[in-house]
Amino acid sequence: MNILVINPNSSEEMTRSIRAVLERIKRSDVVLDVVRTEGAPPAIQSATDAALATPHVLKRVREANANGVDAIILACFSDPGLEAARELSDALVLGIQETTLHIAVTLGHKYTILTPLAKRIASKERDVRRFNVEPACASVRALGMTVSETEADPKRTKERILAVAREAIEQDGAEVLVLGCAGMVGYAAEIEEELGIVVLDPTSVAFKTAEALVDLGVRHCKRGLYAMPAGYGARN
Amino acid sequence: MNILVINPNSSEEMTRSIRAVLERIKRSDVVLDVVRTEGAPPAIQSATDAALATPHVLKRVREANANGVDAIILACFSDPGLEAARELSDALVLGIQETTLHIAVTLGHKYTILTPLAKRIASKERDVRRFNVEPACASVRALGMTVSETEADPKRTKERILAVAREAIEQDGAEVLVLGCAGMVGYAAEIEEELGIVVLDPTSVAFKTAEALVDLGVRHCKRGLYAMPAGYGARN
Amino acid sequence: MNILVINPNSSEEMTRSIRAVLERIKRSDVVLDVVRTEGAPPAIQSATDAALATPHVLKRVREANANGVDAIILACFSDPGLEAARELSDALVLGIQETTLHIAVTLGHKYTILTPLAKRIASKERDVRRFNVEPACASVRALGMTVSETEADPKRTKERILAVAREAIEQDGAEVLVLGCAGMVGYAAEIEEELGIVVLDPTSVAFKTAEALVDLGVRHCKRGLYAMPAGYGARN
Amino acid sequence: MNILVINPNSSEEMTRSIRAVLERIKRSDVVLDVVRTEGAPPAIQSATDAALATPHVLKRVREANANGVDAIILACFSDPGLEAARELSDALVLGIQETTLHIAVTLGHKYTILTPLAKRIASKERDVRRFNVEPACASVRALGMTVSETEADPKRTKERILAVAREAIEQDGAEVLVLGCAGMVGYAAEIEEELGIVVLDPTSVAFKTAEALVDLGVRHCKRGLYAMPAGYGARN
Amino acid sequence: MNILVINPNSSEEMTRSIRAVLERIKRSDVVLDVVRTEGAPPAIQSATDAALATPHVLKRVREANANGVDAIILACFSDPGLEAARELSDALVLGIQETTLHIAVTLGHKYTILTPLAKRIASKERDVRRFNVEPACASVRALGMTVSETEADPKRTKERILAVAREAIEQDGAEVLVLGCAGMVGYAAEIEEELGIVVLDPTSVAFKTAEALVDLGVRHCKRGLYAMPAGYGARN
Amino acid sequence: MNILVINPNSSEEMTRSIRAVLERIKRSDVVLDVVRTEGAPPAIQSATDAALATPHVLKRVREANANGVDAIILACFSDPGLEAARELSDALVLGIQETTLHIAVTLGHKYTILTPLAKRIASKERDVRRFNVEPACASVRALGMTVSETEADPKRTKERILAVAREAIEQDGAEVLVLGCAGMVGYAAEIEEELGIVVLDPTSVAFKTAEALVDLGVRHCKRGLYAMPAGYGARN
Repeated sequence: MNILVINPNSSEEMTRSIRAVLERIKRSDVVLDVVRTEGAPPAIQSATDAALATPHVLKRVREANANGVDAIILACFSDPGLEAARELSDALVLGIQETTLHIAVTLGHKYTILTPLAKRIASKERDVRRFNVEPACASVRALGMTVSETEADPKRTKERILAVAREAIEQDGAEVLVLGCAGMVGYAAEIEEELGIVVLDPTSVAFKTAEALVDLGVRHCKRGLYAMPAGYGARN
Repeated sequence: MNILVINPNSSEEMTRSIRAVLERIKRSDVVLDVVRTEGAPPAIQSATDAALATPHVLKRVREANANGVDAIILACFSDPGLEAARELSDALVLGIQETTLHIAVTLGHKYTILTPLAKRIASKERDVRRFNVEPACASVRALGMTVSETEADPKRTKERILAVAREAIEQDGAEVLVLGCAGMVGYAAEIEEELGIVVLDPTSVAFKTAEALVDLGVRHCKRGLYAMPAGYGARN
Repeated sequence: MNILVINPNSSEEMTRSIRAVLERIKRSDVVLDVVRTEGAPPAIQSATDAALATPHVLKRVREANANGVDAIILACFSDPGLEAARELSDALVLGIQETTLHIAVTLGHKYTILTPLAKRIASKERDVRRFNVEPACASVRALGMTVSETEADPKRTKERILAVAREAIEQDGAEVLVLGCAGMVGYAAEIEEELGIVVLDPTSVAFKTAEALVDLGVRHCKRGLYAMPAGYGARN
Repeated sequence: MNILVINPNSSEEMTRSIRAVLERIKRSDVVLDVVRTEGAPPAIQSATDAALATPHVLKRVREANANGVDAIILACFSDPGLEAARELSDALVLGIQETTLHIAVTLGHKYTILTPLAKRIASKERDVRRFNVEPACASVRALGMTVSETEADPKRTKERILAVAREAIEQDGAEVLVLGCAGMVGYAAEIEEELGIVVLDPTSVAFKTAEALVDLGVRHCKRGLYAMPAGYGARN
Repeated sequence: MNILVINPNSSEEMTRSIRAVLERIKRSDVVLDVVRTEGAPPAIQSATDAALATPHVLKRVREANANGVDAIILACFSDPGLEAARELSDALVLGIQETTLHIAVTLGHKYTILTPLAKRIASKERDVRRFNVEPACASVRALGMTVSETEADPKRTKERILAVAREAIEQDGAEVLVLGCAGMVGYAAEIEEELGIVVLDPTSVAFKTAEALVDLGVRHCKRGLYAMPAGYGARN
Repeated sequence: MNILVINPNSSEEMTRSIRAVLERIKRSDVVLDVVRTEGAPPAIQSATDAALATPHVLKRVREANANGVDAIILACFSDPGLEAARELSDALVLGIQETTLHIAVTLGHKYTILTPLAKRIASKERDVRRFNVEPACASVRALGMTVSETEADPKRTKERILAVAREAIEQDGAEVLVLGCAGMVGYAAEIEEELGIVVLDPTSVAFKTAEALVDLGVRHCKRGLYAMPAGYGARN
């Protein structure tokens, strides 16, 4: 089974980091490829970033279909270009946010999304509604640290994650934490142990779900919403 | 007052047609500019089309802000790039779908969206939910004709519109019809007269709403969801 | 174009105040008439006030239709008698609350309604649901001042508005403020400037929307929910 | 226990008919008074009718409170003036529609409302949403007969009720029928027997619920939404 | 009229306590039987408790139907086995939670459920959604005391109830309190008087509703969701 | 990895059939055990069946935890005892309905559930709401055949499945079919090929999801809704 993970931004470092996580959890019979998106912004931090990245992501999707990939993961928590990617792809396409939120709702009463900065909360709340997982959303909460700050100061990062997670548990009733930022992934085990709740890394959850669905021969429906659009031909 | 209407596709003919409609309804004190989007697909008929058009639309949005426009209308019923455009624009940005659906719900019990082909129904139903105007949506119904077929055969087009509108009224309880396709606009008055319901042309509704909001000095909020994103500077 | 603004209460002072605001923003080609409602309570502060005012409002609506008005605005934030007024009117009827809330949801992620006293919060929350604009409602918040207190002490009024607006922004995620009380209108520009969010005066928003819809020849649907009821004849 | 049933229209015949039904089901310890509403329209068939009836209904409500009634029923399926009546009343006030729909949802999977004429369907659908009983609403369906036609032709009336009820069961999954019209009440037992579903007469359901709540000393909350409004004094 | 109240747990003391409350409010023409559930856990404090109690409850339900009871009340605030009990019962079956919440929504703007311990909040929130009474739910709040603690320390219990009720009123806008625990029932009158809101004891509300519905000859629909299941024969 | 699949009924034949399907799709490193539930009804066709099966299912769940299983699947489309099983289990517990519906919503615009007999439609519609996957539910449709009829007449079964699936696609907009009955599983590939939509076998989907989640070390949250209930001790 061949799975392509597209990091929708152009950062080589983040791409390496995703690859490292997935190499550890992938099944031995899976051929994994993790690629960055040339031409995209170095990070996806706004609707504008997502919009500018998407055409480059779609190019990758079409190439991957020509090469016969079995599944494609869009490895950014805003799932940029998900609907268009499914239109263009015969192979299964999963967005890490959509997939993870639908798993999250089955694992506890309510989930909280952690996001780096408060200014992204509104956007995440829109996504929660877009993916129809609103009734089980306890809250979207921000660390109040940029991604680079989380990299520079691990001690404060861990303290902030724990503090915000505690607020989510005590004030919002969260039982599942969804880490909406790659910079938080390294602390997942510690949070789980210390707070006794479930912590989900979206990239990992979507990747393992892809393995499972490819085994079953399941992909998205190519007849309706995600039908190949006029003017873009078949696979190649 | 300067209003820029961006036709998000590259079709000169459709751009001319939009301009002709708006010239007739614009106030005399409004300077209207209607432009096509170079580099975009010739029509927006899929999520892929919308995704590929958006970066070119955003370029137009930034130029317009540099030139001091008062409002920008995205004149395509799928509102491609609306969120990103608002991020990048200090001037008011309206999507014709979002604006029209929120007017439609105030004019009758329920509204129906007419769309050319059945394969776009799923996508329109998603938009209805995205814009939170679902409770008042009677239905999304398709003519079963392509845009070029509506241009080639006006007689059959009119018959089809009337037939589908009657179904929407009788079976779905529609009181307002939203024309989700430029090819249908010419028949609006006849439908209204014959069926006694309200018919809305989204481009016209959004344009007149823009005039009204600019008069009031109202634009979208630049502090939260639509704040200028990092890395794209101010207006210019 | 003739637009009649009905102040559903009997206060001459409030009527003058509404007229003053609208005279400043109306287009030069619009003939504006602002009338108070004789026989109605001096203010609409409860469902009882609204119920007792409505028959008198409806009398005004029928007279206005007999006189050939183009649009009617019900200028009270509880939209008293809106449904009945539309039944009796061939001319467009807009309620300032319904119209403004549907504009508010297109201008930011969430909106907050400011109301004078806490005891009106429950009623406003019901209206938010009645008009199907609940998903985007951040909160309804009260100043904790009566209308006469806001008139008597402008300094404290401004301080309270700013304080409550700050709570709405920081605690509820509000990006748009809807002023649910005439006494707050004078401070809108200062709030906008100081807090960087959008502030809407419902009477102004509904009035300008009416201008726009009359230009388009659009009124509410007279075939279904708002059909002329049996026993009340046609226009006159 | 004293229960006042207010027929919100001025029809003596309908008032007698309501009294006859309730006399048969009332407990022997209940003093029942059924009154018509002088000054109101002869029937409530529109929002306009309801608006014009309400001030007269409220007068009755205040008198009843002065006289020390224990509960008041508004016996019209559109619950005209319900919110205002609760404001003005210290005694429990029940609307027959609101009460019955909340009982209906506990007795089966979904309920259907039968209404005389198709033109009232939109209004009933709004009420269903207003009272938050939408998820269990199978449909609102019309007999296609006026009230006077149902009185003139009992045979056809029964046939129509059965036919429409069958459609509600087979096409909409209805398990409970709510009779939204006094003219249908006489056929309830036959429908139940023939179709095997539950049939509710709203006036009866609300009346018996009032008996139960008065026994418990329960009335609506007088502290918040339904607090006595300023300017209308206490009970008298 | 014969009404059977099933206490779904095996506690004799709680059964006596329920009987004492209902004896005081039952009509003189009602034959009341209150029984405990042998074989069930001594209290229902989890989904596991409810699941283990249900087969024993269903045995009681079938016996009661064989004996010709008119109505059955499941007297536990989690309504254990409600759907199955209705399948097996020709007689009306009411759950105290479902019935009370649907009455609560008609008595004020919003209601709050009080529950003994915080760990049951998630479960109650699920029930609120299951019974479709979510829009009017202000909150679910916990006393932070076990049932035995409430029995051991009445003074602190009363203080805690008042304190939590005040929070519900001031922070959540509650106008109706639903007592989700038998241990709180004794303080209802004092809370009502001191705080001016409505307080509902679910067992009492459901019992009086059953009296009313039996008078009307109304039971749940036996044709669809609650039809007698294959393999369990008729009444006996 | 050890996965236990509990068939909640007592049928040996259905248990064998489930085992046969899962043996074909399980990973080679997974130790699979599929057991029937002694003491449970031979099939789960009602809420009563589910209620009577649950205590026996829970016994299995506790034993499996004592034996150190990694995940437990409840292999019946009504997910009997799911909440209680999670309370009692430290190991991951998945219900096949809940898991599959949350996967289904990510694979197309809307899904339809196929169920054998019309009398189960109401119950399935309740589940759809209970699991918060209502917005994407196109419909629940019935074959109109019992399970034994589907076994006896494969030709007619296939014809009926295709006919009902076509109705779901054309009338309801279904893009994903969820097979709510073991008897339909054998025809999945043919339906997919002939109709071009996605067909999901819930047992298979839940099983593969369990493999994926166990790999990730993810289980349901043991701190809140699913905490070990008082009185049932730890694992053993």
